[in-house]
Amino acid sequence: MSVNIFGRVLRFTTWGESHGPALGAVVDGCPPRLPLTEADIQPLLDRRRPGTSRFTTQRNEPDQVRILSGVFEGQTTGTPISLMIENTDQRSKDYSEVADSYRPGHADYAYDAKYGFRDYRGGGRSSARETAARVAAGAVARKIVGDVQIRAWVAEIGGDAIDPARFDAAQIALNPFFCPDPVAAARWETLVDSARKAGSSLGAIVECEARHVPAGWGAPVYGKLDADLAAAMMGINAVKGVEIGDGFAAAALRGEDNADPMQPGADGVEFTANHAGGIAGGISTGQPVRVRVAFKPTSSILVPVPTVNRAGEAARIRTKGRHDPCVGIRGAPVVEAMMALVLADHFMLHRAQCGA
Amino acid sequence: MSVNIFGRVLRFTTWGESHGPALGAVVDGCPPRLPLTEADIQPLLDRRRPGTSRFTTQRNEPDQVRILSGVFEGQTTGTPISLMIENTDQRSKDYSEVADSYRPGHADYAYDAKYGFRDYRGGGRSSARETAARVAAGAVARKIVGDVQIRAWVAEIGGDAIDPARFDAAQIALNPFFCPDPVAAARWETLVDSARKAGSSLGAIVECEARHVPAGWGAPVYGKLDADLAAAMMGINAVKGVEIGDGFAAAALRGEDNADPMQPGADGVEFTANHAGGIAGGISTGQPVRVRVAFKPTSSILVPVPTVNRAGEAARIRTKGRHDPCVGIRGAPVVEAMMALVLADHFMLHRAQCGA
Amino acid sequence: MSVNIFGRVLRFTTWGESHGPALGAVVDGCPPRLPLTEADIQPLLDRRRPGTSRFTTQRNEPDQVRILSGVFEGQTTGTPISLMIENTDQRSKDYSEVADSYRPGHADYAYDAKYGFRDYRGGGRSSARETAARVAAGAVARKIVGDVQIRAWVAEIGGDAIDPARFDAAQIALNPFFCPDPVAAARWETLVDSARKAGSSLGAIVECEARHVPAGWGAPVYGKLDADLAAAMMGINAVKGVEIGDGFAAAALRGEDNADPMQPGADGVEFTANHAGGIAGGISTGQPVRVRVAFKPTSSILVPVPTVNRAGEAARIRTKGRHDPCVGIRGAPVVEAMMALVLADHFMLHRAQCGA
Amino acid sequence: MSVNIFGRVLRFTTWGESHGPALGAVVDGCPPRLPLTEADIQPLLDRRRPGTSRFTTQRNEPDQVRILSGVFEGQTTGTPISLMIENTDQRSKDYSEVADSYRPGHADYAYDAKYGFRDYRGGGRSSARETAARVAAGAVARKIVGDVQIRAWVAEIGGDAIDPARFDAAQIALNPFFCPDPVAAARWETLVDSARKAGSSLGAIVECEARHVPAGWGAPVYGKLDADLAAAMMGINAVKGVEIGDGFAAAALRGEDNADPMQPGADGVEFTANHAGGIAGGISTGQPVRVRVAFKPTSSILVPVPTVNRAGEAARIRTKGRHDPCVGIRGAPVVEAMMALVLADHFMLHRAQCGA
Repeated sequence: MSVNIFGRVLRFTTWGESHGPALGAVVDGCPPRLPLTEADIQPLLDRRRPGTSRFTTQRNEPDQVRILSGVFEGQTTGTPISLMIENTDQRSKDYSEVADSYRPGHADYAYDAKYGFRDYRGGGRSSARETAARVAAGAVARKIVGDVQIRAWVAEIGGDAIDPARFDAAQIALNPFFCPDPVAAARWETLVDSARKAGSSLGAIVECEARHVPAGWGAPVYGKLDADLAAAMMGINAVKGVEIGDGFAAAALRGEDNADPMQPGADGVEFTANHAGGIAGGISTGQPVRVRVAFKPTSSILVPVPTVNRAGEAARIRTKGRHDPCVGIRGAPVVEAMMALVLADHFMLHRAQCGA
Repeated sequence: MSVNIFGRVLRFTTWGESHGPALGAVVDGCPPRLPLTEADIQPLLDRRRPGTSRFTTQRNEPDQVRILSGVFEGQTTGTPISLMIENTDQRSKDYSEVADSYRPGHADYAYDAKYGFRDYRGGGRSSARETAARVAAGAVARKIVGDVQIRAWVAEIGGDAIDPARFDAAQIALNPFFCPDPVAAARWETLVDSARKAGSSLGAIVECEARHVPAGWGAPVYGKLDADLAAAMMGINAVKGVEIGDGFAAAALRGEDNADPMQPGADGVEFTANHAGGIAGGISTGQPVRVRVAFKPTSSILVPVPTVNRAGEAARIRTKGRHDPCVGIRGAPVVEAMMALVLADHFMLHRAQCGA
Repeated sequence: MSVNIFGRVLRFTTWGESHGPALGAVVDGCPPRLPLTEADIQPLLDRRRPGTSRFTTQRNEPDQVRILSGVFEGQTTGTPISLMIENTDQRSKDYSEVADSYRPGHADYAYDAKYGFRDYRGGGRSSARETAARVAAGAVARKIVGDVQIRAWVAEIGGDAIDPARFDAAQIALNPFFCPDPVAAARWETLVDSARKAGSSLGAIVECEARHVPAGWGAPVYGKLDADLAAAMMGINAVKGVEIGDGFAAAALRGEDNADPMQPGADGVEFTANHAGGIAGGISTGQPVRVRVAFKPTSSILVPVPTVNRAGEAARIRTKGRHDPCVGIRGAPVVEAMMALVLADHFMLHRAQCGA
Repeated sequence: MSVNIFGRVLRFTTWGESHGPALGAVVDGCPPRLPLTEADIQPLLDRRRPGTSRFTTQRNEPDQVRILSGVFEGQTTGTPISLMIENTDQRSKDYSEVADSYRPGHADYAYDAKYGFRDYRGGGRSSARETAARVAAGAVARKIVGDVQIRAWVAEIGGDAIDPARFDAAQIALNPFFCPDPVAAARWETLVDSARKAGSSLGAIVECEARHVPAGWGAPVYGKLDADLAAAMMGINAVKGVEIGDGFAAAALRGEDNADPMQPGADGVEFTANHAGGIAGGISTGQPVRVRVAFKPTSSILVPVPTVNRAGEAARIRTKGRHDPCVGIRGAPVVEAMMALVLADHFMLHRAQCGA
């Protein structure tokens, strides 16, 4: 089975390298007659786009998406939707150092071990640029799960967390960090700036919530909604951890404290807690679906790190070029996209097995 | 796509409910001419078997496995390997309370929302008994990845962690907790006993390491080794979080501290750290593959919890019966099995694309 | 991807060898709340069962099916349905000749080339006994497509065809050949008997029709209903050709003669011909879905055939034992089962993408 | 599962409509370090290209392929290979008649039944133009199965067959019919011309042979090489029948006449016949793999046919525009491509399970 395809019933394939002519996604299985134009996709791409603040890479890509198929007279036809984004700012530079030496934290060594060689220009297929294709595909998925509201934010940078008491969703769009806490956002300006100037980088934690997911999406055992979310999130570049609901904190709770009690409510059942993150037995409960995602610090840093070159000799490498000082920041729109894609897939999978 | 099948090239399907006549796994795609008998599988099942100490459920199941197909003259034939375990101790009891009311933390409500009804006896398909089938399948996977050494242990129960300085792999088999730290194991006796007697339950963290995984297994983007591990682990009953390598802790590190430097070594390249948990860009680096898995506390507790019944009326429920006070303990052999299954799948997937 | 799993959304896995303890199928993805008991499956197995007339193998298997999971209180639960059939009449005989020499027309040589060895007892995994598992799975599929009527018959044996003018569906159940033409059935008695006595064998053509398939099932390009039917039918033991509608005869027609004209009708549209076999562009049209399947003559014959043995030396082999003189006869219920399985899968796939 | 993706380990997705801006294929799972440039693909596209003789559609498409990803310094990298072909001659014409009325033999009515509407311009996704993407993908597959020789030819047009005694492979490239028999090719000039002038169309039979396929590719039961070939061929536009080896003719043979005897030979085993078409039990035997494919006559004809319009009223339709008088002719390169794609997939699948 191939490895650049994701999903069960709604499947998308991405293709493209950081420094190739273009990258894209093909979304297959989309329901017909959904209104879709490039204007539905572009704003989501713009949120992930590089070069919009000094806290992200200075590579300047318009990330203009084109719909090449699957849409007719403004509506999806049910056939594959081909989305393409041209690369315009692949700066022609000297890659000989990266070609020769393995950058620690990057996939360079692993690629060579697997494939025998690699496209070393800007990370090739492992570049975070690939996630633009996911965001484009995710925009289609959002159309499919129309009523579901998906929102991600950065909850922690470099170990400095937001204060949940100050959570204000309206703030997320108002700062370059997708930060719901304006006080934390102010601190992060200094923090990220300082790391950037030091040629270093920072990790981050992204949280994502999907509201109005009906109870009943997901499936037991290997098609669990949480298992698919875990794969989706862990597959994002630089991600090293995934939690559903309370995640690791649940491991320190007692059963009675971790239970989400129920009581009669407006929709028949009302939960009075959500430790489970909206999923039980792999199936949505109707509560908000909550996921937390840990991004490691960007591996491309100016601080020199010991390494070896392709000849097996000791070397030191500094990764020059234009990089995000904290790759987790632009991870937020990608986490949203993957949430949308997994939910859309499970909506359709549920419809396949259980009808409307 | 169906939801009780796991894997890409090596695929296994499990079937069976807690209180049905039997449960089983069908392993499809296994390479031919591997020596395999029931005696290869039984010891692994015995480690997961209930009723072996007072710290696990008192349900008494021999969990005797039968190979029904796919093996001839002691060797795998390359055809599907059907493994069956009969249920012998499904105690005939009164399930009317569980049939009627939704147990918080369990999948009861979600199942009803999805399927319109459910097999309520002992959790039905969502019972942890299903994991016996995974352990059996995992025993086959271990044969496929012969040289890889896989080892899981419990690193924390109820918030009480082992001391890494006292880690002794030989201890894991010597206590009922799969605990590598004898001092922690002694503490846990009291801790788990006390929770059990209180009719409560505890969460746990399981760690797993696979040594001698060659560099080059895995694949970029959606077939990432870590993404597949995340799905495999998050799909285990009661799991709420997964970390690869440093996981969430990496989010608080700086780039230079999170890098895994390389130097010339015996095998060409030697890493001097393993923050990444043996995986870069979704591909194994040759270092130990390390994963951490958070189990929530068992949802079946005697402490009464507010809930609703199928008629939508308020109720309180206590889950009587025989339950694990800490389901994470018996999770350790399941985590090992899933690690083996994912690695075997990627070994074969790598061979498909890149040859030997 | 594994090779003993069939289907897209409704998937089934079969396992088991001719001379192992049992064989079975696991049906995954079945909708919930369909009434299902062993009594729904057994009559279909009985139609395929060996030993019911002198025109089929004299192996005497009751083919008693057991449902081991996925059904609760007489209804499907939505979880995997495990179906098992025990082998009871695997006669202990001397297989040394078959173990040593390759039977032409059988998979013996190909298996050895692929796997390095094989379970030679009664054809192992390649035995037509495996099709019992498909018939059992097909019985579940029929429940899913409740209103669709599926009917297969034998249209030709040894080159002797039925007379379409004498087609009488009621006859199919009244003779041991699934023959809708009583005159042909009478001729076939003599024909098959004479082949059997000569230690020879005959080929056959099976036709199958599914009525009341709604327009709109199937999908363009690679999920075509006809492509999936072709795979399903070509995957049956001994099948060498598949036609949809007019099949090869269409290649000799002119466009205007092959067109299926439409006119206003009771359901909006009425077709006045069905050259296409109810499928256009891979999607059902609402007309009967028609498929024709060619079975080669049974390869197990008493007539000696030149071959080589495992040592590469010339040999001659006669396949003693109990064999069907015309394996196509018992192919009819298998063709029906595969038709049901493909249609059920596409019904669900259609529901996934397009709703009700 | 999606429906525009084909393959198991080597998977390709195609996208694009007849009258969209472009069409393409993404080939995922290709082994690394295979030399590949556009010059490897273009000649195969040129063979399928429209407008090269008066016997094919007069639509004039250069079908220039671009490789957008997956190749670096002239070699495949192991990442997805994105291939794009721009549409240049989608003539802007009046489609109102096709938009309104259902063309018999086309997918118009079935699409509307499934999706509720359709891209009616030139057949949309169901246009034979989509097969250009398959031919491009097939060119990659040929690189993977380097030593295998694949050759297709037209064996019959409008019921007029070649004379096998005059079969001359060198002739195939010398006439516009891919005809190996120069006498038949001469007859077909008149035949096809006459159908074209009458506004009618003809069916055809294409044969394809793959030589030097090693014994052991394929797999039992549902991953049969012949079942996958059947799906691949039946999925080509206008195909209504598929045969492996003797196909339907085998159904009229006796077992002893259909057996392919073996004798000691240069490679250990030599077959003295090939009724089976090089496949036994779903696995290649080392003999040439032979398949026969029936194409119906082009449905787009000038002869008026009764139909209904979207309002359900009686209508008559003539399909004006530029169409192939015999779509089977250009089917030959498509059959070759699908043969290559299936074989490459099985080569890799075999390597996954059985090693080299």
